[in-house]
Amino acid sequence: MVLKNAIIFSIGNELVEGLILDTNSKYLSEKLKKLGYYVIRIETLPDRFDVLVERFKTGLLEVDLLITTGGLGPTEDDLTREALAEALGRKLILDENIAQELIERALKYYGKAPESVKKQAMVIEGAKVLDNPVGTAPGQMIEFDGKAVVILPGPPAEMIPIFENITEKLKADDALYTRRIKTIGIPEAVLMDDFKDVIYSNPNITVATMASYERGVEVRLTGSKSLKEEIDKIALKLIEALGENVYATDDDNIEDVVYKLLSENGLTISFAESCTGGMISSKFVDIPGVSKVYNGSVVAYSNEVKISLLNVPETIISTYGAVSEECVKFMAENVRRILKSDFAVAVSGIAGPTGGSEAKPVGTVCFAFSSDSFTHTVTHNLRGNREMVRKRSTLLAFDIARRGILRWLRQRETSKE
Amino acid sequence: MVLKNAIIFSIGNELVEGLILDTNSKYLSEKLKKLGYYVIRIETLPDRFDVLVERFKTGLLEVDLLITTGGLGPTEDDLTREALAEALGRKLILDENIAQELIERALKYYGKAPESVKKQAMVIEGAKVLDNPVGTAPGQMIEFDGKAVVILPGPPAEMIPIFENITEKLKADDALYTRRIKTIGIPEAVLMDDFKDVIYSNPNITVATMASYERGVEVRLTGSKSLKEEIDKIALKLIEALGENVYATDDDNIEDVVYKLLSENGLTISFAESCTGGMISSKFVDIPGVSKVYNGSVVAYSNEVKISLLNVPETIISTYGAVSEECVKFMAENVRRILKSDFAVAVSGIAGPTGGSEAKPVGTVCFAFSSDSFTHTVTHNLRGNREMVRKRSTLLAFDIARRGILRWLRQRETSKE
Repeated sequence: MVLKNAIIFSIGNELVEGLILDTNSKYLSEKLKKLGYYVIRIETLPDRFDVLVERFKTGLLEVDLLITTGGLGPTEDDLTREALAEALGRKLILDENIAQELIERALKYYGKAPESVKKQAMVIEGAKVLDNPVGTAPGQMIEFDGKAVVILPGPPAEMIPIFENITEKLKADDALYTRRIKTIGIPEAVLMDDFKDVIYSNPNITVATMASYERGVEVRLTGSKSLKEEIDKIALKLIEALGENVYATDDDNIEDVVYKLLSENGLTISFAESCTGGMISSKFVDIPGVSKVYNGSVVAYSNEVKISLLNVPETIISTYGAVSEECVKFMAENVRRILKSDFAVAVSGIAGPTGGSEAKPVGTVCFAFSSDSFTHTVTHNLRGNREMVRKRSTLLAFDIARRGILRWLRQRETSKE
Repeated sequence: MVLKNAIIFSIGNELVEGLILDTNSKYLSEKLKKLGYYVIRIETLPDRFDVLVERFKTGLLEVDLLITTGGLGPTEDDLTREALAEALGRKLILDENIAQELIERALKYYGKAPESVKKQAMVIEGAKVLDNPVGTAPGQMIEFDGKAVVILPGPPAEMIPIFENITEKLKADDALYTRRIKTIGIPEAVLMDDFKDVIYSNPNITVATMASYERGVEVRLTGSKSLKEEIDKIALKLIEALGENVYATDDDNIEDVVYKLLSENGLTISFAESCTGGMISSKFVDIPGVSKVYNGSVVAYSNEVKISLLNVPETIISTYGAVSEECVKFMAENVRRILKSDFAVAVSGIAGPTGGSEAKPVGTVCFAFSSDSFTHTVTHNLRGNREMVRKRSTLLAFDIARRGILRWLRQRETSKE
């Protein structure tokens, strides 16, 4: 099996200066893998004409598909078009229709049309113009020496719809088959050692693992499509062996799994958040259609709000503290009742950098899951800075929800019998 | 002025396959710029020995500082150490002390120590070991031919503290001076055209702009440190000309500005969120010490919660809909009273992909700012997908808070006179 090779160039001074986060490359790499491409490299480059020309020329020698994002703006530092034309040895031509459109658009929205908007109407000789329904700079697609070259704007809101329109054209003949098994509860080194006989049972199947505080430990099995059955068999064995520690497979995230468990059973959930400060709710609301299973949440950051809005007894906080299993138990039970949900998860912890003590150091986070038949609480000691503690807490909140809902569903099944 | 050059390698199949987002490179680029380095390129590479060796060798020829992140795990696909040793022509040596520590740690936490943990104790000949207080794989720093080579683990929670410990050592002699002016309210092309005489008044000062739906339009002025006074003068002129459209300068984000306005004046804020679903609150809670100015929020995703918890009159929703200035007005006023805050911002909108209508298409978002002396509402029509609409709404929510607080403070000043 021979995969086609691709290279991605992310262009902009703001990227090499660390001013903005490049999310385009992740998006494109993931899509390209599914379309049958192997991304040999992603290069993040400054807006410098000579650098861009040299890197484009090098890239063109190595791949079947070259994609650029960024550097298509109306200002002088945007040079992607110009550099790519130079690397390909082609001219840039003003497209009068696009120029006219850009001028009209600028007049309509801003009341004036600076000369600079015309820069965005420059098209590389022989390129197919890719319509940008959202922004101003169109994308371009060029065939060159049997290779495809695609130019896309930098803002994800503009880049994504343009790319989605050309995925059919880009699809390569051959593609890989991958299974992903996502776990929480077993450290990476232990997992890979305990289950190595299953995981490495076929030398033609590539194994990779990935551990992160936001997503737990993931095992990936990859091979040619002809190995599909074999890969599925290993995945199944592993899933069985790991039991409830597997929280999802393949493209699902943990919040998707919680969403599916709820929507398949006509159930709802709410959250009471202290240190996560809305992060759990916001991640859940990332899911389109979440309103079926989600009414809302309370961010009870101060003790006053925990007491006044969530009815946590003052004595609980004065006796045990706001970061205690006693406190999150009340938060979860009460937010469930107040927001009329079937389940609730509450989180209260010390995210740092200050607020820690010897008894409760930074990273101490308490979780509660509440349902009509039981409430379960647990405390974790997390490492890392404020952001990492909050992100890990969000993962663990969804995990306690997942395990709690599964337990509740099992109980219901048993009581029916 | 000659800056030192640096290159960053982000390593991992999970990166070129688009499974995780690389945030390390943004962090490192931003820090390196401040330390006086020019990042010539960031390369994201797969875990392939031959590829890594070739790219490392090429990079070493071009720069003064080479940094790698990732590929230091205990499993077979982690090859950064091995490839870098090969590229440098040095041996890998087992550090018995580190190995012993890793084994003890594994026994303590997991009850067993797989042989593979020893892989993480392999050190490149001549390297200084950089202690990893959080995880298992230590970093390494090597001097090679007058250049510095730094190896860091991939998880940000481990990478960041190790890097912070070596910043003093890495500091280059010369450094750049940069001012950043961040705006909302004027489109990039119009801003750069209307103010070009100010912005481009000194050819020795580099000008760059950046527009994004999450952060508005930013103008950056950069030059050697000797131009500090001149750069500050241009920045000041631009800030005066743009007035309240400038929401922040330099490293501040919009939420930092809102936080500072509140904490300097001993005031507090709360949020009532519908389509943003906790994103505004979560971004605010990113700020350490936010508890001084923030009690909490209500995520009122369903109409029921808007009615029952935020006391929005049912007739308001049945007459105008939940996405209306009438509805967010009640949400903001009531959440302010219920959570006993000085100010409140409410947001309700149609984030998509479904739920739009001809009168209120996807991207229609209503905002309200409430204080004890006035309530202000506004509707925006945003473009992009669900994620982009929610992120842009979060920016606009903080902007309406900023402008509202400024107005309230001005009113207070006037009434004192």
